[in-house]
Amino acid sequence: MNHPDEHLLNWHSVSHEAWDWCLHRALEYGEGLIPAYGSAGNGRQIGLVFFNDSLRTRASMEVAAHQLGAYPLLVTPGSGTWGFAWERGARMDGPEAEHIREAVGVLARYVDMIGVRLFASGTDLDADRREVKFRTMIEASPVPVINLESAFWHPCQALADAAVVTRATRQSRGRQKFVLSWAPHPKPLPTAVPNSTLLMAARLGLDVVLARPEGFDLDESVMRQADVEAAEAGGRIAVTSDRDAAFEGADFVYAKSWGGLGRYDAPDEEAALRSSLPDWLVTDDVMKSTHHAGFMHCLPVRRGVVVEDAVLDDPSSLHLDQAAYRLHAQKAILEWFWGTGVSEMGLT
Amino acid sequence: MNHPDEHLLNWHSVSHEAWDWCLHRALEYGEGLIPAYGSAGNGRQIGLVFFNDSLRTRASMEVAAHQLGAYPLLVTPGSGTWGFAWERGARMDGPEAEHIREAVGVLARYVDMIGVRLFASGTDLDADRREVKFRTMIEASPVPVINLESAFWHPCQALADAAVVTRATRQSRGRQKFVLSWAPHPKPLPTAVPNSTLLMAARLGLDVVLARPEGFDLDESVMRQADVEAAEAGGRIAVTSDRDAAFEGADFVYAKSWGGLGRYDAPDEEAALRSSLPDWLVTDDVMKSTHHAGFMHCLPVRRGVVVEDAVLDDPSSLHLDQAAYRLHAQKAILEWFWGTGVSEMGLT
Amino acid sequence: MNHPDEHLLNWHSVSHEAWDWCLHRALEYGEGLIPAYGSAGNGRQIGLVFFNDSLRTRASMEVAAHQLGAYPLLVTPGSGTWGFAWERGARMDGPEAEHIREAVGVLARYVDMIGVRLFASGTDLDADRREVKFRTMIEASPVPVINLESAFWHPCQALADAAVVTRATRQSRGRQKFVLSWAPHPKPLPTAVPNSTLLMAARLGLDVVLARPEGFDLDESVMRQADVEAAEAGGRIAVTSDRDAAFEGADFVYAKSWGGLGRYDAPDEEAALRSSLPDWLVTDDVMKSTHHAGFMHCLPVRRGVVVEDAVLDDPSSLHLDQAAYRLHAQKAILEWFWGTGVSEMGLT
Repeated sequence: MNHPDEHLLNWHSVSHEAWDWCLHRALEYGEGLIPAYGSAGNGRQIGLVFFNDSLRTRASMEVAAHQLGAYPLLVTPGSGTWGFAWERGARMDGPEAEHIREAVGVLARYVDMIGVRLFASGTDLDADRREVKFRTMIEASPVPVINLESAFWHPCQALADAAVVTRATRQSRGRQKFVLSWAPHPKPLPTAVPNSTLLMAARLGLDVVLARPEGFDLDESVMRQADVEAAEAGGRIAVTSDRDAAFEGADFVYAKSWGGLGRYDAPDEEAALRSSLPDWLVTDDVMKSTHHAGFMHCLPVRRGVVVEDAVLDDPSSLHLDQAAYRLHAQKAILEWFWGTGVSEMGLT
Repeated sequence: MNHPDEHLLNWHSVSHEAWDWCLHRALEYGEGLIPAYGSAGNGRQIGLVFFNDSLRTRASMEVAAHQLGAYPLLVTPGSGTWGFAWERGARMDGPEAEHIREAVGVLARYVDMIGVRLFASGTDLDADRREVKFRTMIEASPVPVINLESAFWHPCQALADAAVVTRATRQSRGRQKFVLSWAPHPKPLPTAVPNSTLLMAARLGLDVVLARPEGFDLDESVMRQADVEAAEAGGRIAVTSDRDAAFEGADFVYAKSWGGLGRYDAPDEEAALRSSLPDWLVTDDVMKSTHHAGFMHCLPVRRGVVVEDAVLDDPSSLHLDQAAYRLHAQKAILEWFWGTGVSEMGLT
Repeated sequence: MNHPDEHLLNWHSVSHEAWDWCLHRALEYGEGLIPAYGSAGNGRQIGLVFFNDSLRTRASMEVAAHQLGAYPLLVTPGSGTWGFAWERGARMDGPEAEHIREAVGVLARYVDMIGVRLFASGTDLDADRREVKFRTMIEASPVPVINLESAFWHPCQALADAAVVTRATRQSRGRQKFVLSWAPHPKPLPTAVPNSTLLMAARLGLDVVLARPEGFDLDESVMRQADVEAAEAGGRIAVTSDRDAAFEGADFVYAKSWGGLGRYDAPDEEAALRSSLPDWLVTDDVMKSTHHAGFMHCLPVRRGVVVEDAVLDDPSSLHLDQAAYRLHAQKAILEWFWGTGVSEMGLT
């Protein structure tokens, strides 16, 4: 990530230096230690390509770009522009009017960086695990491509969450207990957020408990990487299906729903299993067994399905702080790529 | 409206000082007495949330924000982002992925003000009258929320129209006659504009005539507030169903269609009644009985249904002036909330 | 085009001075001889009205405006705003809520220039040839209207392409052979690009060959204007249906599909004829007979239908350069209308 030809798919494929610098910088923004407005983006444009819906990510990236002086250029394929073909060598006689290689190649002539949101297919686990589409965009792009949530990863969310946890634990003693708790949901959501959350907590050296029902394991490749991160940071990772036990003494409860990996091969069974688990709702009652845990969620969240209103509306809930830190985290990431422009700022 | 935690739903729930200052400021912009570009919005962002379609309002708010140095962040629920749940305490297992409380709470972490367009339900008169949805947004927002047309009110339009009328009457002597005239339309439009227009004209102390067919009264609560405004300003309000008599000697004719309040309970009857009244079309002929009245309309307007081409295409028509003053009025409103930045401007 | 009340529909209806200045300026931008950022748009707004989808044009116009200091205001009728009525004197009781005359009149109160994309109807050849809709917008607009692709013309593409060809031929001796070659496509595309390409190549004084199957002639009015341009520039234009012969010794191959003009009256016949011509695909093999021709295409392009992957992926292909020059060309056009702001720049 020191060179302009590098990209951000996830944090474990870039240098630790990048993570450390960005986390520190995000905290400086969050605590008001540096001005909200900077010059790192002066004379720059960033393309924001949203293949999927967004509220927080799009809004916070637009504002992040603006606050650093860059111009955010929004592209929403299928809305005001056509859809794209992805296959190599295909004869394009279907509905897609343009290949992603041209689309990215053209966009890169107008912008200095491309941010892209492109969720998991949900039908091809191997392609999702290998991030085939995100990597296709990287291959076509002469400018850095950064991930605004791909098939398996959401590094912007992970950095923001890490800053929120770090800030909250500064005054704390001892290793904090962080519970990532599966939650019910009417849809089989992708695993980009739980994957990224698990690795983030592992990297912070927390005492991590992944609480999920049988059938909702995360991908093996993710678990292996989480073990690597935990080992490096001196933390540990446990997995359990005993939700109530997991919550006992927790310092953080991060609720998130995701579809079981069975959704790829046996979607009906996965849906039946998922809908049989409404008791994984995070209640005010189960929160009482924690160590005054801060409740976390990446949002959007379904009230009454994922978490009770009383938990979310409690002032100790961290979900809006997480949203606020998205802005700080993403400015840090942009500055990691572009430089902070500090010396330039000193001159004006 | 003197404190940053206040909002703009309509003009009668904020101070008269706010109205006076904004009207004066809008006129200064409109007459070119102050520079079009200012610094009130430097270092600020404004979220513009459009639950309903818009041309003028969205365009003029984007430009207003830009000309004052602020960044306009557009959010169109359902287009590039999901729809929102509004009920409190509901179990969110339907199509809505996020509650408006989180959506507003998050957005307010990225912006300094939220503008929102959210038309009347057309199905629940009491909820529309109480502005339940707009007030839900206010409750969820730690930053000011301003109204870009709600169930019952359109304060930006009212301020722009007041400036156009004020400017046009500066050279006039005696109390001006202002006719708000119901007009035909294929759809039962909301009453936000006629409500706001009536109160605006009352507040300016004009001789106001509301001309509407039987069955198209405005809400009683609105009429009561109009009487209050007229009494304070020394004007008066009359209501008639004799359209032709109303036009005689008029100085201003403000045409506007709205659905009868019967649309809430008996939509078929309302539609039948509405479609039986094509003669309320504003014709060149009926305009001849006025006192060279300026024709006004908030736009969009249906030619040949609401008004004849000859009226709209006459150079004396004020409808494009009204559109122009939207920009001036909204810059004034932003500056009322943010300060004018004049002293700051003096330093550069 | 020397006066602010003039517009840009196509290059042959403005002065040669405009073309010469803009082409020179686009090349200066493309070769980095002048700074990418300028001040011509300071204190200005440009409305960008897209009745049809766009990627390149919208993205490059937003960035062009931004780099010159102007604010780009995007309007996409039918998405976040309603559709417009176009007929004069019509009674607007259909789905359209606003007449284009008001829409343009209003927009012009907020912006200094209006760019518009509005493709051919495909159903009324005479109206398309006369650019009835584009001219309706011009009539309604007190500010300049520039063409982002209309029924018959795409001047932004033509200027960008002219710059790419000019740059590529600077070191060349003798008159260059430029082949505009019809290509297969599943849809009957409009002729705005081939019309503009033909006139552009004629104007550059090239040895132009239009290679197209029988049934795919361009409009007679276009051919006549091309002859005028060629005569003035000392070039020539030939038309052939022998694609392979046309490619021999070509210096440039510009591939483009368009629907036969028969699509207006006999769409089924046109479709049958069009689908019988897959061999007009530009292959690596047929490119071997050229004089190391640079391959050109305006994009979006259908791989395997219009051109083989091997041609497009060859480093000599000029299609991404064309996209890059869109930005340069459009900045030049904006500066032609607004002035370069150079003296202003000199002062800061």
